[in-house]
Amino acid sequence: MAGHRNSQSADLEFVAGNGLIHRRLFLSGGAAAAGSLGLLSAGTAAADPLVIPPWTRSPGSHMSAYGRPSEYEQDVQRFVGGTPNVVGSGVSFTPIERLHGTITPNSLHFERHHSGVPNIDPEQHEFVIHGLVRRPLRFTMDALMRYPTVTRIQFLECAGNSGGGFDATPQQAPAGLMHGLMSCSEWTGIPVSILLEEAGVRRDAGWVLAEGADAAAMSRSVPLAKMLDDAIIALYQNGERLRPENGYPMRLFLPGYEGNMSVKWLRRLKLNAAPTMTRDETSHYTDVLPDGRALILTFPQHVKSIITNPSTGLNLSQPGLYEITGLAWSGDGRIRRVEVSADGGRSWASAALTEPVLSKSFTRFRMAWQWDGGPAVLMSRAVDETGAVQPTRDAVVARFGERRNYHYNGIQAWQVAAGTGEVANVHA
Amino acid sequence: MAGHRNSQSADLEFVAGNGLIHRRLFLSGGAAAAGSLGLLSAGTAAADPLVIPPWTRSPGSHMSAYGRPSEYEQDVQRFVGGTPNVVGSGVSFTPIERLHGTITPNSLHFERHHSGVPNIDPEQHEFVIHGLVRRPLRFTMDALMRYPTVTRIQFLECAGNSGGGFDATPQQAPAGLMHGLMSCSEWTGIPVSILLEEAGVRRDAGWVLAEGADAAAMSRSVPLAKMLDDAIIALYQNGERLRPENGYPMRLFLPGYEGNMSVKWLRRLKLNAAPTMTRDETSHYTDVLPDGRALILTFPQHVKSIITNPSTGLNLSQPGLYEITGLAWSGDGRIRRVEVSADGGRSWASAALTEPVLSKSFTRFRMAWQWDGGPAVLMSRAVDETGAVQPTRDAVVARFGERRNYHYNGIQAWQVAAGTGEVANVHA
Repeated sequence: MAGHRNSQSADLEFVAGNGLIHRRLFLSGGAAAAGSLGLLSAGTAAADPLVIPPWTRSPGSHMSAYGRPSEYEQDVQRFVGGTPNVVGSGVSFTPIERLHGTITPNSLHFERHHSGVPNIDPEQHEFVIHGLVRRPLRFTMDALMRYPTVTRIQFLECAGNSGGGFDATPQQAPAGLMHGLMSCSEWTGIPVSILLEEAGVRRDAGWVLAEGADAAAMSRSVPLAKMLDDAIIALYQNGERLRPENGYPMRLFLPGYEGNMSVKWLRRLKLNAAPTMTRDETSHYTDVLPDGRALILTFPQHVKSIITNPSTGLNLSQPGLYEITGLAWSGDGRIRRVEVSADGGRSWASAALTEPVLSKSFTRFRMAWQWDGGPAVLMSRAVDETGAVQPTRDAVVARFGERRNYHYNGIQAWQVAAGTGEVANVHA
Repeated sequence: MAGHRNSQSADLEFVAGNGLIHRRLFLSGGAAAAGSLGLLSAGTAAADPLVIPPWTRSPGSHMSAYGRPSEYEQDVQRFVGGTPNVVGSGVSFTPIERLHGTITPNSLHFERHHSGVPNIDPEQHEFVIHGLVRRPLRFTMDALMRYPTVTRIQFLECAGNSGGGFDATPQQAPAGLMHGLMSCSEWTGIPVSILLEEAGVRRDAGWVLAEGADAAAMSRSVPLAKMLDDAIIALYQNGERLRPENGYPMRLFLPGYEGNMSVKWLRRLKLNAAPTMTRDETSHYTDVLPDGRALILTFPQHVKSIITNPSTGLNLSQPGLYEITGLAWSGDGRIRRVEVSADGGRSWASAALTEPVLSKSFTRFRMAWQWDGGPAVLMSRAVDETGAVQPTRDAVVARFGERRNYHYNGIQAWQVAAGTGEVANVHA
């Protein structure tokens, strides 16, 4: 059905092995040139463009108060995984391979709950700041809603995301089911610094315990410096009030830090001299090393990227020109560069980055690729503004071993089978 | 319940009449200073922060495949207004006064349909490019989904938005019901230029007819230059595939142009030498002048802003410090500056703009204001990068008269009543 032509490939500017084309093909003007080359041609000759489709023959449905996706998109859902016989403990993954752009719709934002989603009445919710402060404070939601706010587009990623990367045998599953414990939203909330200044931070305070109002009383210790830097009390997500599974009526949001520290359903901040050593930062969320020791209180989600298309299950239909696209992010700042390889890492070329490139946010990258029908191994490698380079899987495993662990950020490789175009997860 | 102190107001930097404070109060560091001044203080002394709330006592609900808002936010809905006895013709308004940030959730994006929302099977949808092209083309959705894409955050506004501004008597209704025929999304789609290059534009082509597959066969003529500039075939909105009411499976998206030209459910583009003079650009969407003549083919939505909070129905509870916040946008480029007045336009001060300030997108502005409990008239006035200044209502009415018309972008005034803090829509 879709035609293709690659007879004019001599006009293309190949920049790395196995068919990678300079990113200017996808930048302003360049894309049109690609169109004129016929390389992207998937249109077929039109005989009679004026056939009246069935949906033009009678009026459609009415306006609605709160919209829903098309009935033809009902399978675009979170992958829900629970812990057997434990109510409300588990995860749901964002189907990143079915989405595009950088914003994750609220309905598809990943979930990780330790004891389910509480249904909190905002009229009854109270938030307290206490401990090493001159004036302990209590806030109702009405009181909080009067404070000034900031708005930023930033990612959230579970520390356990991509944990399957540690497995010796690569999992064959959709990209979202492996890497979808991450999402990106426009968050609007109150700088924590304002509230701490009002409470009056004592000189002996160095850490802040954040506790949720869920049944797990999820608790983490946060450095005071982070709280005074870019931490917010998030109230809105992508324009509307937080969803219940994202902490309604309020959550802590710590840009770039592992997800569980952005405590949902936040009920108190207690200022302390030292970390509290809660269950959630000692028995969980520690990085166990091969020698049995464990790193604790490891906060940032370091530089990482993933090609979302092609990926497992999204096979290539035929040789020709393709857009390789995916997401890159870093908890340490902006993405500086994303490189793509089509030959398993032997050669690399820079992808086009979608503007604006924001700090601690998803950056969508795009790479033009002419698949010749032969074998290929696709990889992406992100570099952030600190100069940090996304490591290989081998480097991550050398550090942490092959036991499932936190903070996996190794390079993901997708193998494209010759002829069939079938895509598989491989360790390359 | 919420306390306030304004005894230290002498420390504040007032920049315009009736309590407007320099925007640095809301910028990094400044907000914390406001906290230490106690000006934002809405917290009360905390006696016992450790009362266990009911939702901590038992596990919450499970993960879900596609999330929904809290049951406590069910009244945040679009305002639906239909045409009596005409199925599917009407509008629904985004409740802008209940939202924050700049992104509009897909479920709350405004609607304007001429004959309802078709339920299109993407497997059956076809898109044709014909007319003055060398090679008429037909595309299936599968074929289109292979093309390279771009991603941009941009607004969409109905030409008829804020039409009540022409009325001699100011409407007393929520801001969304007056100004909510506008929304802002992250759009991902295929540059139209690629597809036109593939079809081969003939030298005698100057305009492009875009037609929808809805029962109204909504049709508009678009300058070829716009199509080759920044027009896209939108496929994704805020990460997920377009919603049915936004044109699923594909729509035209023309950044900065009046909303109806971004034809939903797009089924064809026909290249012509001249505008087609369709019903939707002759009997509708023309700007009638006081002398009875009408402007036709007036495309851009010019510079505009609206204070969303405070606004009608969002009354002030007591004197003290407030964040005045709202949205500014221009179909002609970036917002350069937003000025706010608290004294009905006698004096103005610059608001803080949320970064990044993007072209043809919503820009959230924020202004610190100390309300002394007396009468106030709040206004915002946007200036875009072309230097265009949002006009007064008087200027708009002088041009178009007091008959309801399109393209109203006059300054909105909100009157705050002394003592009660009640907010009303006024012509000021």
